[in-house]
Amino acid sequence: MDAETFRRHGHEAIDWVADYLRDVEQLPVVSSVSPGEIRAQLPAHPPATGESMDAILEDFRSVILPGVTHWNHPRFFAYFPANHSGPAILGELLSAALGVNAMVWQSCPAATELEEVVMDWLRQMLGLPEDFRGVIQDTASTATLVALLCARERATGFEVNARGFAAGEEGGALRVYASEEAHSSVEKGLKIAGFGAEHLVRVGVDGDLALDPEDLERRIRADRDRGLRPCCIVATVGSTSSTALDPLEPIVAIAERHGLWTHVDAALAGSAAILPEKQWIIKGSAGVDSFVFNPHKWLFTNFDCSAFFCRHPEILIRTLTITPEYLRTPVDEQVTNFRDWGIQLGRRFRALKLWFVLRHYGIEGLRARLREHLALAQEFRQWVAESPDFELLAQVPLNTICFRYHPGLGTKRSGGAASDGDAAGAAGVDAGPAARDAEVSRGGSGSRGEGTRQPVDVDRLNEALLAEINRGGVIYMTHTKLRGRYCLRLSIGQTQTAREHVRRAWEEIQAAAKRVIAID
Amino acid sequence: MDAETFRRHGHEAIDWVADYLRDVEQLPVVSSVSPGEIRAQLPAHPPATGESMDAILEDFRSVILPGVTHWNHPRFFAYFPANHSGPAILGELLSAALGVNAMVWQSCPAATELEEVVMDWLRQMLGLPEDFRGVIQDTASTATLVALLCARERATGFEVNARGFAAGEEGGALRVYASEEAHSSVEKGLKIAGFGAEHLVRVGVDGDLALDPEDLERRIRADRDRGLRPCCIVATVGSTSSTALDPLEPIVAIAERHGLWTHVDAALAGSAAILPEKQWIIKGSAGVDSFVFNPHKWLFTNFDCSAFFCRHPEILIRTLTITPEYLRTPVDEQVTNFRDWGIQLGRRFRALKLWFVLRHYGIEGLRARLREHLALAQEFRQWVAESPDFELLAQVPLNTICFRYHPGLGTKRSGGAASDGDAAGAAGVDAGPAARDAEVSRGGSGSRGEGTRQPVDVDRLNEALLAEINRGGVIYMTHTKLRGRYCLRLSIGQTQTAREHVRRAWEEIQAAAKRVIAID
Repeated sequence: MDAETFRRHGHEAIDWVADYLRDVEQLPVVSSVSPGEIRAQLPAHPPATGESMDAILEDFRSVILPGVTHWNHPRFFAYFPANHSGPAILGELLSAALGVNAMVWQSCPAATELEEVVMDWLRQMLGLPEDFRGVIQDTASTATLVALLCARERATGFEVNARGFAAGEEGGALRVYASEEAHSSVEKGLKIAGFGAEHLVRVGVDGDLALDPEDLERRIRADRDRGLRPCCIVATVGSTSSTALDPLEPIVAIAERHGLWTHVDAALAGSAAILPEKQWIIKGSAGVDSFVFNPHKWLFTNFDCSAFFCRHPEILIRTLTITPEYLRTPVDEQVTNFRDWGIQLGRRFRALKLWFVLRHYGIEGLRARLREHLALAQEFRQWVAESPDFELLAQVPLNTICFRYHPGLGTKRSGGAASDGDAAGAAGVDAGPAARDAEVSRGGSGSRGEGTRQPVDVDRLNEALLAEINRGGVIYMTHTKLRGRYCLRLSIGQTQTAREHVRRAWEEIQAAAKRVIAID
Repeated sequence: MDAETFRRHGHEAIDWVADYLRDVEQLPVVSSVSPGEIRAQLPAHPPATGESMDAILEDFRSVILPGVTHWNHPRFFAYFPANHSGPAILGELLSAALGVNAMVWQSCPAATELEEVVMDWLRQMLGLPEDFRGVIQDTASTATLVALLCARERATGFEVNARGFAAGEEGGALRVYASEEAHSSVEKGLKIAGFGAEHLVRVGVDGDLALDPEDLERRIRADRDRGLRPCCIVATVGSTSSTALDPLEPIVAIAERHGLWTHVDAALAGSAAILPEKQWIIKGSAGVDSFVFNPHKWLFTNFDCSAFFCRHPEILIRTLTITPEYLRTPVDEQVTNFRDWGIQLGRRFRALKLWFVLRHYGIEGLRARLREHLALAQEFRQWVAESPDFELLAQVPLNTICFRYHPGLGTKRSGGAASDGDAAGAAGVDAGPAARDAEVSRGGSGSRGEGTRQPVDVDRLNEALLAEINRGGVIYMTHTKLRGRYCLRLSIGQTQTAREHVRRAWEEIQAAAKRVIAID
């Protein structure tokens, strides 16, 4: 494609993108296609000869787009956001145009040095210590794997790298600790790195679903007594299910006492730490060994962009270094070669979009947007807390609300069902046992079946409710389980989400609940 | 950034990209900045308030660009290409605009199904069997790691995943085989996956630097005799140093005899297999277990886009699956969830750019471009072979020429230095011992120092020559070592490279050689 043809289609594409960003709200947020429906519209074989870009772009609009769930829709409340922004898209465009490989300094000096600079900017914004060095990884899964590898190598004197696990574990099996609420990538990392899933010790949580330091200490001691070798703690700051916050200060104290590596997985929540009033969520992070958060989740930077910090770059590099002849350069002693800071050799120029975002918004602009999301989450939380038919299932320290439909609960509550008195209960969160669910009867306020009280399965009811909510296409939510109970999750973090969208979500949820209970 | 502001800057950015694609040839291909030079021009702290996109884009041009080495310059001959094209850049732009996460089918059905379709198109283009299922990984490093994990788990009945290496290796340490010329990612993969680097068995190579199947068989048997457990062979089709081609048929026969997993790393060379006349390079691939090649290297698709195929998706999925509650969807039994096909959970919508490229070029368009590159490589090879002062150091089956400056060699050759008679020698390749280097004297044809014959260090001379070549900024090359000898590598694969650029490269190299020998 020559430059002028590119120019023509490029302008078309930009107009399409601008229209899309303006009008995305008019589209159904969730695609309603069935499995196989998109595939069935695509040819089974590749074209023998080239096709016009006009035809290709037309198919993009008519075939692909109906199968897209719009992550940048302001009523996207599912999972965690993979948010993005105009400056980030422009950064991706220019990065794609340059097409450099940032594997070593020499292969593109600007890509390496800009990455060093913007990662240091992020470090300052989070208040992490000066000796933390940053590198952009693709995802927190990869960053956590890298941290586990560093921990493994430090604990074994780099013996696993050299001689394998069997040799490295002569002194006993290596153990890793994370809370029951930690992300699935921790277990996956243990498998990949050869620890074995059974060596992930799931530490108990407190009433707020945060790691219980006493249980951590107990389990570490028990492992030592059994001849096992505690190696690493993965602390979760903002769990995926409910943004529960593990307390870093006591965790770091325990890690230091036992000589363990502490890695912080703050994939979503880390962004909130740029707010002075939320800095407390990572208090104690000066003592950790590595830290990851994802600007692609809640800092308006296109996926993928995961910010990984390490206090021991020398361990990181020694763990991951390779120096084949064809990658050696005359300046290796003077520069950073990021090929040795991660799993992959090849690296995209991701720093560009991050630089665009940080400069376009500025620190105050980013803070303002995050504060709006946080305020909206509190408002939504309040609506749930005040509803007689819904209940909160976890604290809402940040942007994610875990709740469920529980018709008739309000009647029961006002009839004397006491708060269970712990921190969760005090905040209007029902932290009681799942067993209570059996007591619930069909027909609470708003139900039309008051004459026929029968027990309903609250989990099943909420599963049906989620399907009903998402079927509408107006909002998109996903679910999780907390303490064995199925719950709905509303995560507020899409770049354009405003009060009207959250209000609309609450209306949709309530309307869908009425439809579901009528059918049930 | 609102849609109209995005539109304005988007059009500016497209014009910049179109101009860049048109004019990149006028820029120095290699950046000449010194370490720290770009960093020194960037503020040490992030901006407190937002800045205008005009200012940001101006800094992109004035501060960043001088530090960019232009991978899409038609005179970029370094490493392997990370090539790209207009349609791929447009695909990246639209993918960035959508910003979807293709981790599970439900999170974006079109992203998953388009990936299935285009990967099957690639499978057909390469002539791989129908039971190979494809997935896009970021890089071949990751794909090779994934293959090693599959091999590990199959060999141990999924015991390492579950109980760790110490348990999984009760029957003896797992061993992996790859040629001396295999990519550094194989060793890195062994470290990451916990095998340990010492369990990578480096198999000897033949005169063409291809894995010697007899040596492979011998080493496997020797390991078995020692109570070790052969587990996986990584065959290299197109080595990084010299595009040496391991013979798949005998390798597969050995793997089948011993029950090993065969993974093919065809990172660069795989693209060439879409040519009927080059299909032989992967002959035998129907019998391998997994296969990777990078459309981002030589199929005009923007980095990152690595095509990984596996004949045993059930093993792949079982090795990498995670099913936390928050990722479960009602259709999990009916669809492909690519989260279970790789290391990362989050995944970009990479299939879009690949689809754009395959349709824009069509099979014949892609073949035509590859054939041009291959013909240029043969032409360059011929120039080297015919030069009295340069010599080839490896075969040139594909796009990469390994050679060195060796002044006076022609005189010696015509004076009776016989070809060493093997395949390499027959093709004009000097495969003789490095010891011969000591005989070389300063002052061959073209040298002005004929009166002062002194031995020169050919390695050091070529190191100086490479620095001199790249200092000019007209072309960019890198080096490697083959059989202990420093050699220059010219890799032809950038999308726009044409005969005039290769011709210019040869002129630059000869001119630089004259300057270097004059100084030496």
